[in-house]
Amino acid sequence: MKKLTLPPTFDQIRETHDAIHSFIHKTPVITCSQLDNISGAHLFFKCENFQKIGAFKMRGASSAALRLTPEEKKAGLATHSSGNHAQAVALSAKLMGIPAHIVMPDVSPTIKVNATKGYGANVYFCENNQQAREDTLAEIQEKTGAAFIHPYDDYNVIAGQATAAKELLETISGLDAVIAPIGGGGLMSGTALSTKHLSSETKIYGAEPEEVDDAFRSFTSGKLQKNTTINTIADGLRTNLSEKTFGIIKSHVDDIFTVSEQAIMEAMMLIYERMKIVIEPSSAVPFAAILANPQIFRGKRIGIIISGGNVDLPKIFS
Amino acid sequence: MKKLTLPPTFDQIRETHDAIHSFIHKTPVITCSQLDNISGAHLFFKCENFQKIGAFKMRGASSAALRLTPEEKKAGLATHSSGNHAQAVALSAKLMGIPAHIVMPDVSPTIKVNATKGYGANVYFCENNQQAREDTLAEIQEKTGAAFIHPYDDYNVIAGQATAAKELLETISGLDAVIAPIGGGGLMSGTALSTKHLSSETKIYGAEPEEVDDAFRSFTSGKLQKNTTINTIADGLRTNLSEKTFGIIKSHVDDIFTVSEQAIMEAMMLIYERMKIVIEPSSAVPFAAILANPQIFRGKRIGIIISGGNVDLPKIFS
Repeated sequence: MKKLTLPPTFDQIRETHDAIHSFIHKTPVITCSQLDNISGAHLFFKCENFQKIGAFKMRGASSAALRLTPEEKKAGLATHSSGNHAQAVALSAKLMGIPAHIVMPDVSPTIKVNATKGYGANVYFCENNQQAREDTLAEIQEKTGAAFIHPYDDYNVIAGQATAAKELLETISGLDAVIAPIGGGGLMSGTALSTKHLSSETKIYGAEPEEVDDAFRSFTSGKLQKNTTINTIADGLRTNLSEKTFGIIKSHVDDIFTVSEQAIMEAMMLIYERMKIVIEPSSAVPFAAILANPQIFRGKRIGIIISGGNVDLPKIFS
Repeated sequence: MKKLTLPPTFDQIRETHDAIHSFIHKTPVITCSQLDNISGAHLFFKCENFQKIGAFKMRGASSAALRLTPEEKKAGLATHSSGNHAQAVALSAKLMGIPAHIVMPDVSPTIKVNATKGYGANVYFCENNQQAREDTLAEIQEKTGAAFIHPYDDYNVIAGQATAAKELLETISGLDAVIAPIGGGGLMSGTALSTKHLSSETKIYGAEPEEVDDAFRSFTSGKLQKNTTINTIADGLRTNLSEKTFGIIKSHVDDIFTVSEQAIMEAMMLIYERMKIVIEPSSAVPFAAILANPQIFRGKRIGIIISGGNVDLPKIFS
């Protein structure tokens, strides 16, 4: 596949989907009559918590990795991340038989460090700030020649994330809306591109915590804004939009909803208790937005992207 | 269907399965490569946590309810239970358009009381001991004429519980063993009867907490024994075997494994973290037994009955 320097076309998303086939699961779409009753809507949950490494990130990481040249592949993959993207890059490298170099903040939970090492990646620790991450990564790239896979500010990654909504829309027809959580915007951008092509009448919504509402403020003002705090339980959504993801979101997303921390917790508990699936807090944000806006969603057929299931349950409830 | 006064034949289990069709979900069988790696076995999880009311109990309750005479049905269903069986009887009655009368101990968690009331049942509170439960139930039966649906000591209930393993074995072939948790023994009895008929070479195992090992001691000694404590997190397994369930278990089960509380907690966490499904502690007991006995299970194809997913997560981790 050729590297993408523009937002992916749907043909390129389809080509990506074919290429990453053996790197991902086709995850199930699950319904729940109890949550339909509670919300008054018909909900179709695209369960990326059942994806390899437990999150949609596997789609984007493998999409970008497979587009590297043979020489680049030989030198391996590199990224900085303490979360799902680290594991996605590590597993992509493992499946391709190439090295992975992952920079993680020294405060990363042991469980995530071990999971990343478990995929055979070389893990490097740095101080817990952006500068230290970037400096350490630059050092490692210089030494190893490994290619940096950005978690979202990369059209090659976005093409991969788009395949989740593609699968959803190819499975469930007649959706009135699709809604996804927004962190860095990779999943939202991909969701928007696939939905726009496969079901042009379907509304495209994003959801994010009030506490990290950079996407909402960027969308409303038309200018890229940054978060000023990271005070949310939805740890996957603390990142800021990038120029590339904001560009796609600005063009294709119909609206962005923000929800309180309490609403996120309540939505997550409902999904645990009624659907019996484990999701991470970020994945509860779209359902929280649906519950908070019944006038918009009642009676509608809604696709929800459940982004992942990597959560430290004892910590959540401690 | 005719009422059963002997252990169900497989023809009767098949008839039951047809009859309860609209009362139950055909639940999925899920695999997990990570848990296969950890256990060294090939595991097939029959996920009754996705069953209606969140547990296999719906199968047995509806099986017994549908076998009542028209006059008995008119008077409604009654039982005493603080857990999954209460909800199963309540929902069965609702679906049949008849009344349900449920006796619950006054210490029952509000969430379970509300769930039972949510199915339209009449809930009666009593003191938290067996005598009070039985007295209150007798009073209500006298007043209403409602039929008592026992949670396990009833061949009509056992015929329903047998349909879970029937679905598993009709979906997955060549299992070396099937393993289920043992509380009152209804699920274990039904599992044994279906397995013996559909796959006579498949070993049939039970698993229970060391702390409530009445089934293990009964099985080993050949005489029905009782638990002396209820000190286990696996709240669904605190009940004792009955004459009927012990009779079936004695004849058909190959072995019973006991596991520590720590092993149950670790097995449950692995299922939460790797499979991303919510299960109740009782459902982790068979997987704990597999991890504790690698010499028996390694390399084998094992069916595991996940009995339910009704768990108070904040309480588990508090």
